[in-house]
This record gives sequence, C-alpha cells and structure tokens, in this order.
Amino acid sequence: MASTTAYAEAGVDVARSEAVVERLRERLTGSGDLLGSLGGFGAALPIPSGYREPVIVTATDGVGTKTELCRRLDRHDTIGRDLVAMCADDIVCHGATPAWFLDYLAVGRVDAARIVSIVGGIDGACREIGCELVGGETAEHPGVMGPDAFDLAGFCIGFVERSALIDGQRTEPGDIVIGIASSGLHANGYSLVRSVIDRERIDLAMPLSELARDRLGDADAGNGTGAGDVTVGQALLEPTHIYAAAVLRELAALADMGLRVGGLAHITGGGSPGNLPRAVRPDLGVIVDPGSWPEPLVCRLFGTLAGMDGAQRRSTFNAGIGMALVVEPQAARHVIDALAQPFGGAWEIGRVVPASAVGSSRYAEGAIG
Amino acid sequence: MASTTAYAEAGVDVARSEAVVERLRERLTGSGDLLGSLGGFGAALPIPSGYREPVIVTATDGVGTKTELCRRLDRHDTIGRDLVAMCADDIVCHGATPAWFLDYLAVGRVDAARIVSIVGGIDGACREIGCELVGGETAEHPGVMGPDAFDLAGFCIGFVERSALIDGQRTEPGDIVIGIASSGLHANGYSLVRSVIDRERIDLAMPLSELARDRLGDADAGNGTGAGDVTVGQALLEPTHIYAAAVLRELAALADMGLRVGGLAHITGGGSPGNLPRAVRPDLGVIVDPGSWPEPLVCRLFGTLAGMDGAQRRSTFNAGIGMALVVEPQAARHVIDALAQPFGGAWEIGRVVPASAVGSSRYAEGAIG
Repeated sequence: MASTTAYAEAGVDVARSEAVVERLRERLTGSGDLLGSLGGFGAALPIPSGYREPVIVTATDGVGTKTELCRRLDRHDTIGRDLVAMCADDIVCHGATPAWFLDYLAVGRVDAARIVSIVGGIDGACREIGCELVGGETAEHPGVMGPDAFDLAGFCIGFVERSALIDGQRTEPGDIVIGIASSGLHANGYSLVRSVIDRERIDLAMPLSELARDRLGDADAGNGTGAGDVTVGQALLEPTHIYAAAVLRELAALADMGLRVGGLAHITGGGSPGNLPRAVRPDLGVIVDPGSWPEPLVCRLFGTLAGMDGAQRRSTFNAGIGMALVVEPQAARHVIDALAQPFGGAWEIGRVVPASAVGSSRYAEGAIG
Repeated sequence: MASTTAYAEAGVDVARSEAVVERLRERLTGSGDLLGSLGGFGAALPIPSGYREPVIVTATDGVGTKTELCRRLDRHDTIGRDLVAMCADDIVCHGATPAWFLDYLAVGRVDAARIVSIVGGIDGACREIGCELVGGETAEHPGVMGPDAFDLAGFCIGFVERSALIDGQRTEPGDIVIGIASSGLHANGYSLVRSVIDRERIDLAMPLSELARDRLGDADAGNGTGAGDVTVGQALLEPTHIYAAAVLRELAALADMGLRVGGLAHITGGGSPGNLPRAVRPDLGVIVDPGSWPEPLVCRLFGTLAGMDGAQRRSTFNAGIGMALVVEPQAARHVIDALAQPFGGAWEIGRVVPASAVGSSRYAEGAIG
C-alpha cells in the first residue's frame, strides 16, 4: 500500500503485517462451520445442530505475564495452548462444548515467524479439542510495547443443551470435590514468579531440581511433582492442561449413569479459595484438605522464595489442582478413575458444607470429616 | 486473601482488584439475557427469540494505540465507546444485530477509578445500541506495561436471520458505494499520529485550527470538518461513531421496500482501499472518487505532517468515511437521506465495477463514470 513507508517510520509495517496474514491463512486451513470468508469483517456461523434448546456460553481470558517468560526464553509455540486452556476450560465449567475461538494478539513489532508460532499454537490446541479458530486480531503497538513484548487474549463460544447447563445450583451438602492435577503453574502467578526470578537472580537454564536443592534444602527437593530433569525455564513454560474434552466425556458418562454433577471450577487466578466457592450454591461452601494431593515442586519453590506459606500459595497458584468437579458421593470413584490417568492425578480434595460452617469466604481448609 | 501482601510486592494488588470488581458489579446492573451469575466462569445465554434460522456473527478488535493518547491526556471515559464501535460495526457489516459484548482490559497497575471509567464507557456504548456487556477480564501486568498504560480488546456476538446475512455475494457491477461520515480518526492511525506529535513537539492543548494555520498555511485551515474550537487532544480523542443501530434500521427499511443491499464495509485499518473491496464479490472491485466527500482537518493535518499525500492518507486513516454501504442505484437516495443526518454526512463516493477494470487490488480512485 502507498502509505507503507510513512507508516513504517512510525513503527507500523503494513506490508509485513499483510505477509503474516498470508502465512496465517495458509496455516489455518479452517473450517467446517464458517459461512463467511476469511476476508469478512466478522465470522458468520450457524448454530451447531443437535441441540433442542441450545444455550450459548462465552468467556474471555488472557495468559497474564507468562508472555514475558516466553519473550525471555524466546519460546512462542506453547503460549497459544495456555490461552485456549484458560478460555475453553471456563466454558466447560458450565457443561458447554467449546465450539469457536477468536484471539487478540498485541505485539510491539510484527515478527512473522513469532506470530505464526503463537497463533499456530492456538490453532493446534483448538483442533485438539474440536474447537475452531474462526477469527482474530493482530495489533502492532510500536512505542507502547517493547519490540519483543506481546499480549494475548482469547474469546471462546460454546454450546450446551439448556437442561444440561451446570451452574452450581444442583450442589448439595455432602457432595465431594474431586481435584484434577494441573501441569505446572498454567497461566497464573507469573508476575510473582518474575519478581522472584529478578530479585534472586535465578538462572532459567538451571535444572529445577538443583535450584530446589539449593534453596529449599536436600530433604525437600525430591517431593512433589514436576522436578525431573527439566530446567527452571522449561518448568515455568510447561503447557497448560486442557481439560475440556475429557471432562465433557466424563460428564456424558455420569449423565448416562444417572449420577449428579453439581458444579465445576477452573482453578485460575485466586487459586482454590478464589474459585471453588463459585462452583457451589451461594448458601454452601467447601472444606478442602490440602494434604490430599501433592503440591508441584515449581509452585512450592517459587511460593516459598516469595515468602508464602502453603495457604498463601494455594490462593495465588493452582498449587497442583487445575480443575475441580463437585459431584454426589456415588460418582466420586468414577470421576477419579476416568480423569486421573489423562492428567496425572485426581483426588478427593474436599467436601461441600453449609456456608455457615465455613464463614463468609465459603472456603476453609482442614481434614475432611 | 492471605497472599495479598506477598503478591502486592510483585505489583499485583489482589484486594484492590476485588474492589474494582465490586465497583463494576454495582455499575453494571445487567442483564435481561444472562442465565449465569456474574460470579460464573462464563456467561450463559439463550439464543434470542424471533429467528427462524439464526446465524451467529462474531468479531474481535482493539483500539490500537489510541490508549496511549488517553493516558497522556488522562481521559478514560471515551475509549470504551471506541472499542464497542470497532467490534459492533464489524458485526453489522454482515447484517447482524450486536447482542453480547465481552471486554479484555490489560493494565500496568490497577487504578479503580480509571478501570471503572473505561469499562463504564464500554457499558454505556453497549446500552446505547441494545447490546449487553456480559463478561470481561481485567488483567494486571506489572513490570511488563507501564503503570498507567493499558490495552483494550473487545469481542462481540450478534445474530442475523440466515436469509438476511450480508456477505458481498449479492453485489453487482453498477452498484453505488455510499460513504457515511466518520467522527475524527476513530481508532486507526494513532501510532503514526503519536510519532508526528513527538517529532514535531505538538502541544495537545493547542487549538486544532491554530495548529492547522501554523502548519498548513491560512488558506487550508478552514477547510474540511472537525476544526471548531477543539484542542488537538480533543480532536484526537473524539469518540467513534457507532453506526450499528441506524444502519440496521436502514437495512430493515430497504428490505421492506424490496431494495437490495449487497455489502457493507467498516472503514478501519487500511482505510478505504483496504476495506471497500471486502464488501463486494471477489470478481468485482470499486472505483472511488476522493473529491466526493470532505476530508476532516485532523486527518489532513496529521497525514500531511507525516509526509503523506491524499491517497496515502486514505489508505491509513478512515479519511472521513467510517462506514460504507454498497447498494443498488435505486436505493442510494434513501440511504443518504436516512444516514446523513445522524452521522454528519453521507455521500455517493464510488461505483462497483468488474475487478478486471481496477486491477488486483480491486480498488482504484478516479471520477465516477
């Protein structure tokens, strides 16, 4: 375009942006559902068939400042999966099947390979769960963001039969909280992690187990999960589990058996105390036994270096539980058997109680009665 | 929450964030449609009634680095309207009615009053067009963004009867392109504008007309639109027109009269040459007469200071046309009469021709035959 040169002086390279769109177009072969073309202003889609009374569930989320670790480690192919996980697993908390996804990517400077890597990660994760990347926006913000900085947000649309909508209303006192293992820190707590890295001058190429031995003492280093031979950087960029597909299969299996699922909680910002109460009726709360699952080493290590005790870590990080299901007691065994293997663990971590038993936060920690 | 102190040291203030959510909750009284509560993980919504075969149209967009001017001028109550305009008017290009909106706001540091101002602007603009703000995410990115910096993205979902879906396929050679006046620069070209402001050390508090006299010479300053007594800063932050409601009314009126609307184009990044061809069939193009509408002073001034000629300005800024309708000739008069008054102008700006007449860009400028 005629303005390319003048605009390039302001830091926006229109021709380079168009080259990226072309590469994305080649990569994103799309689309069963899409009615409109990729050149349209919006994506036009029919409502998926097979629903008697479809309810649309939408959610938006970002990946926080995990992007800054991607930048430092020059690793951009995993953050897209983190983004899809953040959004799709909010949708699945209402029993809905993620159908369509749109992304918003802001960059300091257009780097075609990096953008294709990021959006390719989004596309790959969407395909894995049968969701479709139907649109997106890539914006260049020269002068406002550093040249290699980026930010990422996602929007997900899912569908659920109205009678199968899950909203916590069908939870009951005595229901069991099943926690499903997380894969590392997912996308929360990274501002804290970066402040620890900078203050303690931590080498991201160092083995995580070695750092743990140095800072926590020998006795602790082998505990928990997530050590192995990975470096600190690898542990911090471990891609987020996406629970959607397996959880939806399990919801269907439980429904077939006539077993009740009252609520689901995606454990993100605010940790278990911030998210578990959202899965149960407003007059109910949860008691969680923190001894019932292993805390990942990366969480214990960075939380401890930040001066946090266990309760503080559990309200900042997912602390080892990425998703929770609130089910009637008869369903607990089936959920654990179905979901432990795919995600590396599933445990009975808590119990639903009247809110009056746990105070206004509707959350308490202790042994389960 | 227990971790507030440690997390605050990393720059994330959880308690302050929760106070913001409370203030937003009070402000956003919500919600006819919403099935889920505000505490849910996603927003659950039934498909609006009255559609025989509803098609969902979705779009995402941001407001570019207009945010940086908001920061410099400490003015945060108008950018939300810009965001809603960017997204909702993409939806309306397909004939769809914007129904639900979600926002993503990233801030360097949580400032409750500022966030309420930004999100309040989004909510107000949504209400104005009968759209509902059903969800959103506010993320704090300390260390990655400056404390007063912010970024904003939106996501809009609309509905259209399948038979009324507009996708350019029903455009024909000889169709008329009607351009509707923009209100200033909307949300495109701001990286260029900022580079001019910084290089030329422009005082944002100076009257726009005075700056124009100084830089363009006396003869030019009175021409075009948008001068008046506004300062440079006011002219640059002028809120974006939202065309959706009035355009949808006009589409309905034309349909009642049996008049054909082939396509619509929202003139955003890439200007007229980047967007008008998207409104017509792939085998067609458009010829635009740049003399057929007045160029706003703010566009001519900043474009000229950036060393751009008119064609370059029209491919960078909206250059005075924010929305265009491609209609059969018999409909042109009605569209102009209906849309000129609400938006300050509507003109016959171009004609649809075979693509072979205008080359691979499917866009050319010249007198209309």
